[in-house]
Amino acid sequence: MTINLKDNERFDDLQRNGYRIIQKTDGFCFGMDAVLLSGFAQVKDGERALDLGTGTGIIPILLEAKTDGKHFTGLEIQEEMADMAARSVLYNHLEDKIEIITGDIKEASRLFGLASFDVVTSNPPYMNDAHGLKNPDMQKAISRHEVLCTLEDVVREASRLLRPGGRFYMVHRPHRLIEIITALTKHKLEPKRMKFVHPYVDKDANMVLIEAVRGGKPMMKLEAPIIVYKEQGVYTDEIYDIYGY
Amino acid sequence: MTINLKDNERFDDLQRNGYRIIQKTDGFCFGMDAVLLSGFAQVKDGERALDLGTGTGIIPILLEAKTDGKHFTGLEIQEEMADMAARSVLYNHLEDKIEIITGDIKEASRLFGLASFDVVTSNPPYMNDAHGLKNPDMQKAISRHEVLCTLEDVVREASRLLRPGGRFYMVHRPHRLIEIITALTKHKLEPKRMKFVHPYVDKDANMVLIEAVRGGKPMMKLEAPIIVYKEQGVYTDEIYDIYGY
Repeated sequence: MTINLKDNERFDDLQRNGYRIIQKTDGFCFGMDAVLLSGFAQVKDGERALDLGTGTGIIPILLEAKTDGKHFTGLEIQEEMADMAARSVLYNHLEDKIEIITGDIKEASRLFGLASFDVVTSNPPYMNDAHGLKNPDMQKAISRHEVLCTLEDVVREASRLLRPGGRFYMVHRPHRLIEIITALTKHKLEPKRMKFVHPYVDKDANMVLIEAVRGGKPMMKLEAPIIVYKEQGVYTDEIYDIYGY
Repeated sequence: MTINLKDNERFDDLQRNGYRIIQKTDGFCFGMDAVLLSGFAQVKDGERALDLGTGTGIIPILLEAKTDGKHFTGLEIQEEMADMAARSVLYNHLEDKIEIITGDIKEASRLFGLASFDVVTSNPPYMNDAHGLKNPDMQKAISRHEVLCTLEDVVREASRLLRPGGRFYMVHRPHRLIEIITALTKHKLEPKRMKFVHPYVDKDANMVLIEAVRGGKPMMKLEAPIIVYKEQGVYTDEIYDIYGY
């Protein structure tokens, strides 16, 4: 089967199983956030995972390559993005393992049913109205700002979608950590593992990775930080490992 | 004035202003926790600070040496500890700057009055009943376990004692982070700065330092981690700096 690229699209190599992903040359591309979340999340043998707001499908595709999960679903509201993700799935011959659905995160538990997944992942928009300017490009704005769904929507739907004991994995910005923890505990998702990402060892964190368990008991494991750069322009060994080089 | 040591007491050098502190040779001694909290807390020119559960008085004495604060109070329920702290204050000629009061954290806002401090600090007992065995030595047990006061007591009293905009600084264990954040936000103390302490760069955190502002707006700054050891037995430069070597 031949998968055709549209104008302004390109294939990017994922350094895993020979997989490639379709991205726009001038649009929202997956970032280190998605790659680090895929390294942090655990999907065990036989488990079913859902990615809320999957964009180009980067998270289901990387999780398929890295974990023993049985099946992966990506939900994306933007038709053009969902179409790119679906073509990437076909290109990598993953149609038996990964399904891309076009739909709204806010409706996800109605769409898939309550307690229908073992794992939910999300790399949601980080910015609420109080922070940062909206991107004039609407597609990027939807990926980055809480235009179509809020943090609360993502957390509420994740909680409904998970079986008891199921795990939610999210990457977000540390400046919203208290809101994140408040939303998670409100929706019975108990944060159990957390890992901060610092660009350099002596700089503030700019990402947080969180695992929360549906109905879990309080007991946090605050893992070793991820340090991105050893020195300017030189990644740490850990980053090379996560990227699969 | 000569300050006499009792049996089983010793002077320890604090590496700051020539200050020394009285500790028991066989009792609960201040740990790195208190030193790191004193390095993290900020007491500005003219401000008044209170330390809840001050033990040997280590935190007021270090804060007096390191900050521009105007006055420091230490509250300690155990008479023998409070007496040691008071003698250390006299020994260092700090009686105009530091006052040690014997009393109960649970009664602190009644004792001192509402909104009576700019800064409150605490290195409270870390263990609740669910974690760890109680120490057979009662004095150590009171310092380490929530025998006489709980996390909730400390946070509630800190909130009552602080003026609006006043700052609460606490060191605690990361495994209780969600409880800590829940208690802080419940009592209108908004966490604004957080810093994790990892024994090595590739190990889980074993302490968390938190600054919360009375009535503050949500916006977290997740600072660079403190890494204690470069390699086994060798402190990092940052630890030497904080200790004042």
